Amino acid sequence: MHKFIKSLLFIATTFSVVEPGLASAADKLETAPTQFIEANGVKFSYRALGPNTGTPLVFLQHFTGTMDAWDPAVVNAFAKTRPVVVFNNRGVGATDGVVADNVAQMTTDAYAFIQALGYKKVDLLGFSLGGFVAQELAAQHPELIHKVILAGTTHQGGGNNLMKVLNEAFSRANAPDPRDYLFFSQSDAGKKAGAEFLSRVYARTKDRDPESGKEIADAHGKALIIWTSTPDPEYKTLTAIQQPVLVVTGNNDTMLDTAGSITLYKHIKNAQLVLYPDSNHGSIFQYHDSFVNTANYFLNH
Amino acid sequence: MHKFIKSLLFIATTFSVVEPGLASAADKLETAPTQFIEANGVKFSYRALGPNTGTPLVFLQHFTGTMDAWDPAVVNAFAKTRPVVVFNNRGVGATDGVVADNVAQMTTDAYAFIQALGYKKVDLLGFSLGGFVAQELAAQHPELIHKVILAGTTHQGGGNNLMKVLNEAFSRANAPDPRDYLFFSQSDAGKKAGAEFLSRVYARTKDRDPESGKEIADAHGKALIIWTSTPDPEYKTLTAIQQPVLVVTGNNDTMLDTAGSITLYKHIKNAQLVLYPDSNHGSIFQYHDSFVNTANYFLNH
Repeated sequence: MHKFIKSLLFIATTFSVVEPGLASAADKLETAPTQFIEANGVKFSYRALGPNTGTPLVFLQHFTGTMDAWDPAVVNAFAKTRPVVVFNNRGVGATDGVVADNVAQMTTDAYAFIQALGYKKVDLLGFSLGGFVAQELAAQHPELIHKVILAGTTHQGGGNNLMKVLNEAFSRANAPDPRDYLFFSQSDAGKKAGAEFLSRVYARTKDRDPESGKEIADAHGKALIIWTSTPDPEYKTLTAIQQPVLVVTGNNDTMLDTAGSITLYKHIKNAQLVLYPDSNHGSIFQYHDSFVNTANYFLNH
Repeated sequence: MHKFIKSLLFIATTFSVVEPGLASAADKLETAPTQFIEANGVKFSYRALGPNTGTPLVFLQHFTGTMDAWDPAVVNAFAKTRPVVVFNNRGVGATDGVVADNVAQMTTDAYAFIQALGYKKVDLLGFSLGGFVAQELAAQHPELIHKVILAGTTHQGGGNNLMKVLNEAFSRANAPDPRDYLFFSQSDAGKKAGAEFLSRVYARTKDRDPESGKEIADAHGKALIIWTSTPDPEYKTLTAIQQPVLVVTGNNDTMLDTAGSITLYKHIKNAQLVLYPDSNHGSIFQYHDSFVNTANYFLNH
């Protein structure tokens, strides 16, 4: 596999559509052009923002999420001072290939994608399912992964309420987008933040990713359920992570419960924990300014 | 009591040594002049820093701590953008009166002191024992207390290991100041941070507070032990706190354990939790820059 990646890397380096140095011209996720790069047999779609210098921050997305599901308030704020890359995993959005149905495959693919971009060292922001991939990447590739933000996520074997909360979310009347209910608290402040988030993620009008359908939901659901129900009683993945880690979630994360974030904090050697009040799975979007302030400090020092 | 405070307030307002507006001239704790103001029958010693505008941040000190025990790196950083006040509680340092041996008295005194300074609205930073006073002030005086930082502290009935950890700290060889062991982790980074902290708190050479002796340790010890061993099973104090609260401590707070900070976070309605890695009771001093960055954002928004 490693040889295969290397040969792909060679191809990617030689024929990549966009030079890494040129990829970071955009300053807004809403208008950043979709670009493509080949790695691991997949043509990955991605968008790059921010300056050309500094350690790139690579975003790893949640269950069924495309690049359009990232909050421009978070992505653009980071991109003011560092290169930022969002991308679609195998089979998601404008990335081709068969959707990955396990975290190991997603990890291999994310690694190949980052390598293809020519980056020698990156920071990661893994949200939810993307947080599992971030943990695996950090544990397996200390030479590549510099610092890690784990948002709204949990450890292997940490359990999930995916089916329960998805059923609840979709069964609600007048809820066209389940994220307002799953990601945000239902206080006045939480509802307002949820509406603002949805307005931001729908601000991009051109060149949006195709919406995720049942095939993606099934594969990602399988990956998520298997990873969260496979015990890791000795926390081997967490104890392998030596990089500085920032763990963030809401006080009422119903999808991957808040206790799982506390466990991440306790078993990762060098982890800071930030838990927000009055918030759920999407606390980093609800408190985007506060989160970016803390996260930028964490990444810069 | 309220009438008594009012008449003292009148006296303080009329005859106070320093006008509130003039009190915030200094920019360094190391050289800020010690000032005095009468309140509640006590002549309080205090030091004021920072600009004259903005919500003042009042520091509430730990077990046996004087003004000289505050970290200039923290105090001065806050004072760049807001008025900051440190003071000695009754019978401590240059403040006269009999040392208070209970949290209720400390709370009454702190309230009278803040009122005497003429402040209508303040933020609090309560560290350890000072965090108990901060909780009581916030719960009892919502009209006065705007936002609260609770550092290295716990809830009423939260338990303490004071005797155990003090004995351990004082029984160590080559440990002239127990704070290097109690406040800081014993990793290389923690030891370095501890040495730097001690260097900072001893930077003030003139007009230092008298050191605290056995009388203060006994009274503060009694206050601390009674408060942490008196159960509050319904968390009445915590649920009475409606202000935004930032709870901060280290992952290995041995004096007032880290779990107590998680409980504060869980039972205060609007609380954000920050737990640092590789740190003990004094995490806000070990990670002073990161802490001030997060705390300033919290106070400003």
